[in-house]
Amino acid sequence: MNLQKKVTIKEVGPRDGLQNEKQMIQTEDKIEWINMLSETGLTYIEITSFVNPRWIPQLADAVQVAKSIKRKNDITYAALVPNERGLEGALEANVDEVAVFMSASETHNLKNINKSISDTYPVLKPVIQEGIVAGKSVRGYVSTVFGCPYEGEVSIDSVLAVSEQLFSYGIEELSLGDTIGVANPKQVEEVLTEVLKRFPRERIAMHFHNTRGTALANVLVALNLGITNFDSALGGLGGCPYAPGASGNLATDDLHYMLAGMGIETGINKEKLIQAARFLEEKMGKELPSHTMQTERSKISN
Amino acid sequence: MNLQKKVTIKEVGPRDGLQNEKQMIQTEDKIEWINMLSETGLTYIEITSFVNPRWIPQLADAVQVAKSIKRKNDITYAALVPNERGLEGALEANVDEVAVFMSASETHNLKNINKSISDTYPVLKPVIQEGIVAGKSVRGYVSTVFGCPYEGEVSIDSVLAVSEQLFSYGIEELSLGDTIGVANPKQVEEVLTEVLKRFPRERIAMHFHNTRGTALANVLVALNLGITNFDSALGGLGGCPYAPGASGNLATDDLHYMLAGMGIETGINKEKLIQAARFLEEKMGKELPSHTMQTERSKISN
Repeated sequence: MNLQKKVTIKEVGPRDGLQNEKQMIQTEDKIEWINMLSETGLTYIEITSFVNPRWIPQLADAVQVAKSIKRKNDITYAALVPNERGLEGALEANVDEVAVFMSASETHNLKNINKSISDTYPVLKPVIQEGIVAGKSVRGYVSTVFGCPYEGEVSIDSVLAVSEQLFSYGIEELSLGDTIGVANPKQVEEVLTEVLKRFPRERIAMHFHNTRGTALANVLVALNLGITNFDSALGGLGGCPYAPGASGNLATDDLHYMLAGMGIETGINKEKLIQAARFLEEKMGKELPSHTMQTERSKISN
Repeated sequence: MNLQKKVTIKEVGPRDGLQNEKQMIQTEDKIEWINMLSETGLTYIEITSFVNPRWIPQLADAVQVAKSIKRKNDITYAALVPNERGLEGALEANVDEVAVFMSASETHNLKNINKSISDTYPVLKPVIQEGIVAGKSVRGYVSTVFGCPYEGEVSIDSVLAVSEQLFSYGIEELSLGDTIGVANPKQVEEVLTEVLKRFPRERIAMHFHNTRGTALANVLVALNLGITNFDSALGGLGGCPYAPGASGNLATDDLHYMLAGMGIETGINKEKLIQAARFLEEKMGKELPSHTMQTERSKISN
């Protein structure tokens, strides 16, 4: 294996995790939770999404969350924005980075954004460019890179086309998402090999879901290809919107377990990570599904 | 990746899975379940263990199970035997293969077998040799290869020493077990690299547990090193005896999902695998923890 020495884990729990949780979390609890995450050694936290609250009521408190958390200088606090109106909110709340999103699959893009892929570009272009003018770095998410809940297979060409457009508008980093958790290591190798012919590895992040248990195997392949940015959500928060009850985001704690065991630096303190996960479990009144949290609970019950 | 084209999945659910389940399963249900497993395309099933029923009441019906299942010619039906008495039972029931076991960690071996490692050899040697004389192939399990619940780290030298002894007695195949599910891919690479300097890859099997979610990543490394035999238990049956509530054996269905997606042949039919898992869930009155079964359930509830 040709391993990287250092990896940046980008915590997406407060956004991608919570947006898939039906149970409403109190704003003050979110703020306290994010403050705890800031103490774990994480250097990147996606704290919320400035979307229309009609679509995601859970994140209706985006402004308040973004304005109330205690920020640390060495952490990038990011937020998702779907359009110019979202960007305004994010700029008003002064987040460090904004992230736009679209899908590599026509049908998923249509169902998720209510627009075709080609009609999405003119929406995202000004968001990206105004974000940059405002002094923010901009991240681009591409979803359904490894499979679509409606179309099944997604071609590498579609992934490359969307990636190319987003980079051409000025995004700093591209996050490739296995939205429904279907990817296998061979596919990750195939897709990434093509992606890395066109874009530098430092500007690519991988965003795996663990719906079929393959997320860490997929991470391993990406690591071997030089990728050093990985998205994950503490405790595996979030589930999969297309498979209720199934595992969702790759868990930050599971990812950290594997990387730490392999001697790969993340700067994260495991105990503080577990504490933050326990806090959220308490506030939600439910157990988080990650393997690490299952194992931690069993230690207590022993 | 340097992938194998064909892999043999060795189903250990009826033994390693069930022995860690507290809830007693009816003998007739076990028999029907194993008969269903025989229809999935699996070519190897470890059906029970001929241990003292005082230690594992769940498998007290070993003789009846072994004698009552419908056998298919192209399937190897194996059973675990701890000693000569166990071997007698297994031979009487005419299983195709017997498996002996010991630990690479002194303390785990002592707690599990009530003997030191050096005192275990004289017990296993005649079992292996009499098994061979009786016309059976013999498998050797080494447990705690990647970590011990009592000692923590286990040295590669201990693993090699135990492996060397077992091969010298005539075992056909060695199964290296991550008993408590702590292994990471780098460690698997390190251990296997040493193991494969001494023993041919065709005679090594890997037995991963998914306690920390790393099992499929570990499989991937072993595949890349030429290993083609993997143990797993349908639905992730079994839990981890040292971490109650946590995931246990790598799930056959999750392993099959990854391998099939990568175009690696296993001969297994996914639908029949799921059917067999559903049958067991019904008989146990509980859900199996594998990612695949979680996803399958969510399809129904959708």
